[in-house]
Amino acid sequence: MFAQRIQHLTSSIIREILASAQKPDVISFAGGLPAEGSFPDVDWSVLPNKVRQYGMSEGEPELREAIAAEARKKGIACDANQVLILSGSQQGLDLVSKLFIDPESNVLVESPTYLAALQCFNLFQANCRGVKLGSKGPDIANFEHQIRDYKPRFTYLIPSFQNPSGTCYDVASRQAVANLLDQYNLPLIEDEPYCELDYDQLEKPPICSFMQKAPWIYFGSFSKVLIPGLRIGYLIAHPDLITHLVRLKQASDLHTNRPGQWLALEYMNSADKPQRLERLREFYRVRRDAFAAALESEFADLAEWQVPSGGLFFWLKLKKTVDTRPLLKRGLEAGVAFMPGEAFFAEENPPHGYIRLNFSHTEPEKIVEGLRRLRKVLEEADNA
Amino acid sequence: MFAQRIQHLTSSIIREILASAQKPDVISFAGGLPAEGSFPDVDWSVLPNKVRQYGMSEGEPELREAIAAEARKKGIACDANQVLILSGSQQGLDLVSKLFIDPESNVLVESPTYLAALQCFNLFQANCRGVKLGSKGPDIANFEHQIRDYKPRFTYLIPSFQNPSGTCYDVASRQAVANLLDQYNLPLIEDEPYCELDYDQLEKPPICSFMQKAPWIYFGSFSKVLIPGLRIGYLIAHPDLITHLVRLKQASDLHTNRPGQWLALEYMNSADKPQRLERLREFYRVRRDAFAAALESEFADLAEWQVPSGGLFFWLKLKKTVDTRPLLKRGLEAGVAFMPGEAFFAEENPPHGYIRLNFSHTEPEKIVEGLRRLRKVLEEADNA
Repeated sequence: MFAQRIQHLTSSIIREILASAQKPDVISFAGGLPAEGSFPDVDWSVLPNKVRQYGMSEGEPELREAIAAEARKKGIACDANQVLILSGSQQGLDLVSKLFIDPESNVLVESPTYLAALQCFNLFQANCRGVKLGSKGPDIANFEHQIRDYKPRFTYLIPSFQNPSGTCYDVASRQAVANLLDQYNLPLIEDEPYCELDYDQLEKPPICSFMQKAPWIYFGSFSKVLIPGLRIGYLIAHPDLITHLVRLKQASDLHTNRPGQWLALEYMNSADKPQRLERLREFYRVRRDAFAAALESEFADLAEWQVPSGGLFFWLKLKKTVDTRPLLKRGLEAGVAFMPGEAFFAEENPPHGYIRLNFSHTEPEKIVEGLRRLRKVLEEADNA
Repeated sequence: MFAQRIQHLTSSIIREILASAQKPDVISFAGGLPAEGSFPDVDWSVLPNKVRQYGMSEGEPELREAIAAEARKKGIACDANQVLILSGSQQGLDLVSKLFIDPESNVLVESPTYLAALQCFNLFQANCRGVKLGSKGPDIANFEHQIRDYKPRFTYLIPSFQNPSGTCYDVASRQAVANLLDQYNLPLIEDEPYCELDYDQLEKPPICSFMQKAPWIYFGSFSKVLIPGLRIGYLIAHPDLITHLVRLKQASDLHTNRPGQWLALEYMNSADKPQRLERLREFYRVRRDAFAAALESEFADLAEWQVPSGGLFFWLKLKKTVDTRPLLKRGLEAGVAFMPGEAFFAEENPPHGYIRLNFSHTEPEKIVEGLRRLRKVLEEADNA
């Protein structure tokens, strides 16, 4: 009765546990929720009457212009016609899947990678293959090896403060990846939701800004810097791709909600945008540092980790290589939520002993207590 | 390089011509835009802070409760757990396609039907088959014949003030269709965006309210009764289907924008909702009657039509069976836009000599002039 893809339909473990993780007595390191305290007050009354009517599939022209102008400053050669406003950048994953994926198509992702991307690509019956990720970017030799072996339709990368690992590609890695993709004319999907959440001022030129030949699509989001509830993201695409993507958007939901687009435009045009961003970075920098200190005091003997220079997550390699999935339920019983690392790997038999901890949403005074509850769960766990 | 489905990717002719149709010197009968004059003033300041954060894939619980309560009044046995809030009901077509359509799957639609539904089903590589539509509903014998011949995955119907034909199924047709679908256990997609735009108080029990056995999904929208720019629609699904649909929604865009959901809830809860709806019906009733009178005086010798009891469109059968697609360009040159009828048929060689005219968006004083421009274009046209 159902389409074949429904056999590959899985739910996000994050959203499954959202209910239990949000109970007041649970300290949650599980989701990727921005802190409510970081949200600006919104003056909804600025919204003009025109946003009530149907809009264009491409998005509001003024917003597309503002996004293109900012992208050019980052080195992406583009104009407003290459910008498509999305109902959150998650929608970009859906449109890209529709554009490139047939059943059994191969897709190269980072190992580990964003689990909602895996879910979306798998729903479209892709075979996702993981490229080894080092501390400064992917293993280029392994990357090229897999391009030759699997002839992927595209590669999906999160070069800045990657979810879940926190990895930020250095400039040399960005250039090397761009050269490799040009060499094999392999399309790049570059997903940058955390790019602005940079606490140590790293240099982060977009990979697509180095590309000369292969097609590319760059995703951006307002969910992390403005307000997630608006569901406003965008993509910027190579001229060969944008027309198809606009039509796929049109067939998916006609166009993105206009009040949200208008508030995103207000944000882009706000004179104090740099100051607002710096306040946001400072807010999260403080939480990251508090979390790092708490990990140092509570987990030094249990796990290894790098302190992330941006984004919202710590990625822990446990000294005990335990399957962390069964521990989630015990954690919730003990009043702490986390993300099992297995969910972030493309492999059918993912490596064990990794967990992802979000540091943006928990008040600093609760971090130590949360980690102590988690520590107890891990200590009681047996090796897989 | 692209997925096979991209060969089936077409753009909406409506949105293609939107730019030219919106030029001030063009009188447009083409789109399905609600009249700006019908939009309520919106007090955005009622929006609570909580709508800034990420929300649930299913939608706001209070809104789902309100929608389920209204649906029960219409005879649909359902609770809030069967309601999924959509980014406009167009998204429902995307989710349904993902749920049911494999390449070469057969789908039964009305002939004619909503062209954006044809585009979406075709993008997922379905074979759409048209069921003959009479003035009071589908030809049941033809319907059963096609169910047996084509073993469709589902049927997509718009029983109230159908787009484009304006047809409203009578109660007997609704019962007969429900019995037929139960007999063959064929899933029903019942799309009701125009249900509330009822100018002659017809009885319109949902088809799914008569169904005992076959699965069903009912689509509703706030775009026609509140504000389209919010992009808020919903579906109500049989318990066997809702879990899959929520997961498909989650993979498509995580969740629907929350400010729009909140304003939809305010509308559902407003004490004067019945009066607001009656004012809206009166607004459109006046425009329909003005359009009917203008057609009578300008087109009586050129075409035949039924005055629609609801919705936004007149469907004209021209006495000259001309291919109306080439006439669109000439119409725009002459300062009038309309929808060629061919776009609304599933057949590869659609019947000629039909056009769809929207009456909701053109100021009454411009209707006669618009029809005179159109008349000239039709008179100059040769038979196909």
